[in-house]
Parts: sequence; C-alpha cells; structure tokens
Amino acid sequence: MLETVDTNKKLEKSAYKEWFPRLKFELRELQQTAREAKLPIIIILEGWHLAGKSDSMRHLAEALDPRGFRVHTTFPPTEEERTDHWLQRFWERFPEKGRVVVFVRSWYYRVLHERVEGTMTDEQVTHAFQAINQTEQMLTADGAVVLKFWLHISRKEQKRRLKSAEKNPFDRYVVSESDWEAYRLYSEYERSVEEMLERTSTHGAQWIIVGSGDHRYRRLRIFQELCEGIVNGLNRQRLKKELAGVKKSTKEMSVPVLEEMPTILDKVDLTKTLDSETYDRKKVSLQLRLRRTHNESHNHGIPMVNVFEGWDAAGKGGAIRRLTATLDARYYRVIPIGKPTPEELNRHYLWRFWRHIPKDGVLTIFDRSWYGRVMVERIEGFCTEEEWRRAYQEINEFELQLFNAGVVINKFWLHISAEEQLARFESRAEDPHKSWKLTDEDWRNREKWDLYREAVDDMIKRTSTTYAPWTIVEGNCKRYARVKVIETVCQTLDKAIEGRKPLKKKGKKKK
Amino acid sequence: MLETVDTNKKLEKSAYKEWFPRLKFELRELQQTAREAKLPIIIILEGWHLAGKSDSMRHLAEALDPRGFRVHTTFPPTEEERTDHWLQRFWERFPEKGRVVVFVRSWYYRVLHERVEGTMTDEQVTHAFQAINQTEQMLTADGAVVLKFWLHISRKEQKRRLKSAEKNPFDRYVVSESDWEAYRLYSEYERSVEEMLERTSTHGAQWIIVGSGDHRYRRLRIFQELCEGIVNGLNRQRLKKELAGVKKSTKEMSVPVLEEMPTILDKVDLTKTLDSETYDRKKVSLQLRLRRTHNESHNHGIPMVNVFEGWDAAGKGGAIRRLTATLDARYYRVIPIGKPTPEELNRHYLWRFWRHIPKDGVLTIFDRSWYGRVMVERIEGFCTEEEWRRAYQEINEFELQLFNAGVVINKFWLHISAEEQLARFESRAEDPHKSWKLTDEDWRNREKWDLYREAVDDMIKRTSTTYAPWTIVEGNCKRYARVKVIETVCQTLDKAIEGRKPLKKKGKKKK
Repeated sequence: MLETVDTNKKLEKSAYKEWFPRLKFELRELQQTAREAKLPIIIILEGWHLAGKSDSMRHLAEALDPRGFRVHTTFPPTEEERTDHWLQRFWERFPEKGRVVVFVRSWYYRVLHERVEGTMTDEQVTHAFQAINQTEQMLTADGAVVLKFWLHISRKEQKRRLKSAEKNPFDRYVVSESDWEAYRLYSEYERSVEEMLERTSTHGAQWIIVGSGDHRYRRLRIFQELCEGIVNGLNRQRLKKELAGVKKSTKEMSVPVLEEMPTILDKVDLTKTLDSETYDRKKVSLQLRLRRTHNESHNHGIPMVNVFEGWDAAGKGGAIRRLTATLDARYYRVIPIGKPTPEELNRHYLWRFWRHIPKDGVLTIFDRSWYGRVMVERIEGFCTEEEWRRAYQEINEFELQLFNAGVVINKFWLHISAEEQLARFESRAEDPHKSWKLTDEDWRNREKWDLYREAVDDMIKRTSTTYAPWTIVEGNCKRYARVKVIETVCQTLDKAIEGRKPLKKKGKKKK
Repeated sequence: MLETVDTNKKLEKSAYKEWFPRLKFELRELQQTAREAKLPIIIILEGWHLAGKSDSMRHLAEALDPRGFRVHTTFPPTEEERTDHWLQRFWERFPEKGRVVVFVRSWYYRVLHERVEGTMTDEQVTHAFQAINQTEQMLTADGAVVLKFWLHISRKEQKRRLKSAEKNPFDRYVVSESDWEAYRLYSEYERSVEEMLERTSTHGAQWIIVGSGDHRYRRLRIFQELCEGIVNGLNRQRLKKELAGVKKSTKEMSVPVLEEMPTILDKVDLTKTLDSETYDRKKVSLQLRLRRTHNESHNHGIPMVNVFEGWDAAGKGGAIRRLTATLDARYYRVIPIGKPTPEELNRHYLWRFWRHIPKDGVLTIFDRSWYGRVMVERIEGFCTEEEWRRAYQEINEFELQLFNAGVVINKFWLHISAEEQLARFESRAEDPHKSWKLTDEDWRNREKWDLYREAVDDMIKRTSTTYAPWTIVEGNCKRYARVKVIETVCQTLDKAIEGRKPLKKKGKKKK
C-alpha cells in the first residue's frame, strides 16, 4: 500500500491558510457533537520517526477542547508493564463514551518495533495481529470511532530530517543513536509496516496513510480525515438508534468538502511514448519471451490472474490482444466482464468471478473485474454505500485467498487523460469500423470523470497489496502501454517461476 | 465445546410424533417465505461417520419443496478439482437468493480430513481457517443464512453403529476399511473437530452441535434450529430493509417454541456429597498442596484467572474463601463484580475486566465476571439482543487473547437445584447473621430461574473451549463443591507448571 502514497504531496500556503482554520473549527464543533452523542473516539498516530506525529498532536491539542480529550504516548513497556498482558495498558486508556483519546504510537508498537527487534516468535506475531483486529472490531461494534494514521516519509526525507534536527539546538534531543540505527533499518521496517497495514486495514478500522513530506498537507489531511471519520461515526450511530426505535431528531451530517486534492492518477506521467520502430522491436521480443515464460509457468502449474481496468477507450482490448497474441491457446483464457446476468445478480457479487479463477497452469485475463463493485456500482448506486465500503476488505481477502493458494495476481489500471479520451471517442465516432465501440453510456460515464477519478484513487490506495499490486499504465501512447503490460506480465511470471518447482508429468495428464 | 454435548439425549416417541410433523410443516412454510423474501440459505451437515447425516438429509428432502433446494455431497476433490482453488467448487454451488443449498460435508473437509491425513502444512491450515471465516462472513454480510451442524456421537457409539451396519445386508456398503481406520483415529479426529469448532464458531455462523445418540432427538433438534435460523435471518433482513428506508409490512416472525429440552444443567448429578470427616481431611491436604503449587506457579510467572459464576446462594463465596485460605496473600487477588459504575457503563463492557487481568505470577479470582453480559444483561435487557448474541464470540476472543499471552483460565459454574436454593434462602432469612446476604433481588432472580437455566445452557455450550473450559460444580453439598473447586485449580496449575520454565530472580524483583 505504501507505494501508492505520494510523500511529496504539497499544499499551497494560501490554500492552507484558507482551509486549516476552518477545519480546526469544524473539528472542535464535531467534538462537542460527539460528546453530546456519547460517541467515543480513538485516534492513533503512527508513523516514521520525525514524520510529524508530535506536530500533528500539537495542532490537535490546540483544536480540541482539553476537557474532553486525553493523549497517551506509548513507550516501550516498562519492566512492570511487561508482566501485564500487552494489551492491558491500552484497554485501561480507552475513552469513556463521548471522549476523545489520542494514542501517539499504540498497540501497533508490538508488531512494529518488538517485531523488527526480533524479540517475538512468528506465533506471537500471528496472535498479535489477531488480537489487534479483534480488539478494534470489538470497539467499533460497540460504536466507537477508530481512526488510524500512518505518517509516511521516504528514507531520504527521514535522513534529511535527522540531520537537520541534529543541527538545530532546540531539536537536537529528538535524535539519538537508536534513531540512526532505525534509519539504517528503514527497509526492514518498511516491510513490517507494509505487512501491518495490509493485515490490519479492516472495514471498520481502515488505515489512513498520509504522505507527510509537506507539513501543511499532512496537517490538513489529518484534520480532514478526522472530521470525516467523526461525521461517519455520528451518522452510523444515528442509523443504529433509529433502527432501535429511538427516532432522534439528529440530522444526517455531512463532511466539509475541501478543495480538490491531487489523486494518485494526477501524478501519472502521460507524456511517456514509444516510437513505432522501437515498439515493433520491443513488442516482438517481449511476445517471444512471454510465450516461453507462459509455457514454463504452465509446466510449473502456476495459475495467474490478470485484471484489466481503465477508462473507456483507454486501450484495454488492444493491450489484451497484444498480450495473448503468441500464447498457447490451451493455457490462457480471456474473461470479458459486462453487466451481470439476472442469475449473477441473485448471488454474492464475487460469485461470478470465482467461476473463472484459473486452474493450475492457466493464465486468465479479466477484461474488467470485481472492481466494478467499487467503481461503477459505487457511482451508479447499484449497491449501497455500506456494501461498497465493505468491499475493499472483501476484495483484499478474496485476493489473499487466491494468493495463499498459489495464484499470481497482476492488476492493471490503464490510464489516459480526459482530452485523450475525447479524441479517441471522436475518432471512433467518425470511423465506421469502430463506431460500434462507442455507446451513449461511454459519453455518460465521461461526464462522471471526476467521480471515477476519486473512486479510482480510493480503489488503488485500498487494494494495492504486496500479494496483488496495481500497476498504473500510462496509456496516452498505446504503444508504450502495450509494451509495459507485456513486460509486467513477463516479470511477474518469471518471479513466480523462480520460487517453484516444475510439476512432473503434468503435461501428460492434461489433454 | 464437544464435552458440553450430551450425546445420549433422548426424545420420547410421543413427543417426537407430536412435534416433528409440525416442525416439518413449519420449515416448508418458512422455505416459501424465504423464497419470496429472496433470502439465500446455506445448510452444512458435518459430523462423524454414521452420526446421521444421510438420515437428516432424507428428512430435509421430504420436508422441503424440491424446486427451491439442492443438495451437494462433498467427496475428496478429484484430480481435476485439485487443480482448482479449493474453495471454488463450493462457491460455484452457493445458492441464488431465495434458494436453499445443503452441503453434506463441505469446505470443512479440508480442515478435518486433509488435515488429519497430514497432507497440509501448518501454514495451509491457518490459511484455510482464515479463508473459511472470511467466506462465511462475506456470505452473511450479504444477507445469507448460514447454518452449520456438527452431528456428534461418542467413539463407543460409532463402533456400535459400524458393527451393526456391517451386519445389516442393506447397510453393509456404508462401512469400508477406511471407516474403521478413521474410527481408530477417533481421538485424533476429535482434537481436530474441537479446534475446528472453536476457530470457526463466529457470531454470524455459529456451529450447532447436535448430540446424535438418539435419532428422534437429532432430527427434531436440526429442524428446530433450521426454523429458528431462518426466522432470525428473515428478521435481520426485515430490519435491514427498514433501515434502508424500505418500510415493508412484513411482520416480525417468531420461532415455534418446542417442549422444553433438558439442558446441560439437568444432567448434573446433584446427589454427590462428601461427609464431613472426609471433607476435613481432603480439604486440608488439598489446601496444603495448593499452597505449594501456587508458590511454584508464582515462581514460574504464571498468571491465572478463575471465574466463579453460579446461582444465588450456590456457595461461591464459601468456595472462594476455602480456595484462598492458605495462599500467599501477595500473589492472589479476589475481584468481586457487582453492578457496573457509571464510569464503567460508559465504556466497552470488557473494559472493567481488563483492568484486573493478573500480572505474571498472580492468581486472580473473579466473583462473577464478564459472563454477566450473556446472563443478567441478556435477561434483564441491559443490553440489546444483538449485543449479547455477539458477546459469545467476543468473550471467546478475549479469553483466547489471554490464553495466547500465557494466562491459565478456569471457569466454574456452581450449580444447585431450585429446591436447595429455596432452602438456603429461607435459612438465610431466619438467621440474623446471614439475613443481610438475602435481598429482594435474589427473590426476583429466583422467579427467572428458567430464563437463567436457558442462558446458562447457551453460555456453557458456546464458551467452553479447550483454552478456557467450564467446570460445572455439583453444589447441593457445599463440602463436595469446595473440594472439587480446590482440586480443579490444583490440577490446572500443575499442568501449566509442567509446560514452563521457572523465571530466574523473579522473587527478588517483586517487592
């Protein structure tokens, strides 16, 4: 998930000055509302050293009414605390209803630091993740709002901050030898962080990863997410009360809408191109390589899933055709996903995809996929908000189940600019051989570009995992996109083959 | 959980004849209602070989409208199926909305048979349990009713049935050498079954363990649970629709109430007694033994939790006093649990117990406990039905978290008969030194004896686990009860000490 975070996101000073005071005010108002509604709020600030936890905390303390909130900073357990259950010191500090508690570092201390320090067995790590998820689930089921932040900076940025702090006589005390030690272990920690985010991002307690290279962006983002989280919590509580027959007159609340932030897609470099000569050369050599790799992966019994999502006219079909051009037709399948049939609509939304999960040794391409749930179904209202919000976790679980059974997963988002799409639509409309490809629905979807842009951002952020990563394909130049797709599939398969033994007699059994 | 099941429960033929046809009719009616309501129903029949899966299936087939239901029998995966994801063949068979699917054996095949056969790695077992829980959670979140039955017979009974089937020319084909093989591995399988039940009994998909020694009881119980499960599913769906603003006029449905079945408590042998001479002798020797064991467990740093629950006047206080009489006061604590304070009421119900979880080396006694949630809070309506139903899973998770951190857990239910309670109440009322112990509330609780009896039955069945077992103490004779309590604590501690190394210098650190 970390690779989807832009740590360099910046906010203009003017925008910050306009928005931050308003958010502070909003948050304080919400704190009062939550207090009256008896809504308990738990805020967790985790992140790299010097990523801005204390600064965020300072601003929170400024904004919140001190009578209703408390801060707990988590240090390594004392000798005394070590004789307690490791969760006990946190349970003791959970807030009363209507109160806010902020944990600067938290129960994640165990699965991050103790783990990297190597003082935990694998079994203890498993138990710790389980206990954390269960605890957060108990709290949210009981009505609490749990908001978890990971403040993210790059290794380079951390080094810069460590050095700069050392030079500053006021800040010097925040840097110790052990911080440099941790800095040197950045990539080890990063793997642990990644796993932690994956294993504990649940529907009720999603991690919010904040790119913290810019302090204004960080502060604003945290405050915005806090407001949104509390509003959602209040709304959930209101629904629950109505359900229980307590028809209170509390009105549905809405989140303050901020100036649009750049999304993941906005940083995609759409100027990337490939001239047609290089393209021809590369394409042919990659296709030959893929043919070999594909056969080999078949002999190793490796099942592979490739998901293709992207804007209308982004070039999914063309990329898929180039991908499969040289493949042995017995060992690959392309599954086009359209509107669900009545039979499919009558079942769990994942049902129709399970049918097409590849057998061992088969490469399957989904032309559109289960991500429809969090894209078109979300935007067109084909499912409830509760349903698509829950779907991120369900999809991650589904993909993890595939991965655990040996399935290799690639997910492609084919990205083009709105202008490029318009150009392609118009050229399709003019070309009698292609006009069938262009429907009224395409034009309608185009009008919802901004809604999709937001949905894609959420989707990539929440479902990009180590076991099923998204690859964003720069698609304004079709040649560039096609080569990148084939190359990515090759690389992924090569890596998968490396780790496995070929099956014996496999080829003979299959007819 | 299996030890709480009475496999010898019997049903009189007359009661069976009266009730079974009515339940069959009821079930068929419910099937129609569920079809109209588009409620998907998944029924899983698992259990020992010859425990009655096929017979149950036959009766189900008779009762249900064949147009709306399908049966799938799960066999070991074929060579072909083995190249699929192991869950795929089940996903494909999940019912359309409004339909019933019965799986005779199911996805549990993997964690039972393949596991005992030793063809799975530990990691695969972990993944399988995780995938099963996630899948059932996805289905129930989507509105499906999932009803899972484990048909339980004893090893002895299985042997009897294997032999009797072999003698019967019509049944001979159901017994193969591999069945005898499995019979010989009964206790290995039993451990796997126990773990499976513990790890996959979740709030939305609880296992229903049916003592299947008597076929009439088995059939009736299954049908009753099916009716209840479907009614609950319909009610949940109704609530959800109302919540979504679809105010349908469907009325709340209720479950057909059956003649009272004997509960776990009814089979407790309350005639057990101990004469006062034997009592004195045994008590003293056990108390001395416990003192030694307790000190040793302290030196090993073992934390222990003892939960005392039981009827009013069942003798909890007296038993606790005898238990602690000779213990080193520095290393044990008694926590009396009364009505929650306003501060406690303002938090998650487990909060006030977490504060008292013992440190390493400390023995803690809870005089009443978190089980109040599923007893008094359930019966007096201090929490919602949704809350106490969810609590069984939460409590199991909580106790597992303690266990995983090394806490040893014993839970006692002190049982007396209603007559004995009356006698004790009356003697208290007459004795000026004891009359303070008797309150109006005790009399009020007594009136709710039957409600408590049912709640205790549910509680013991759903929360008796290998890591935190219930011990039912026959309490009509106080002497007998006290000796049993001390003995059980001794044994549990002895076993815990066996598995651990003593801590060094521990004694010196503690002051």
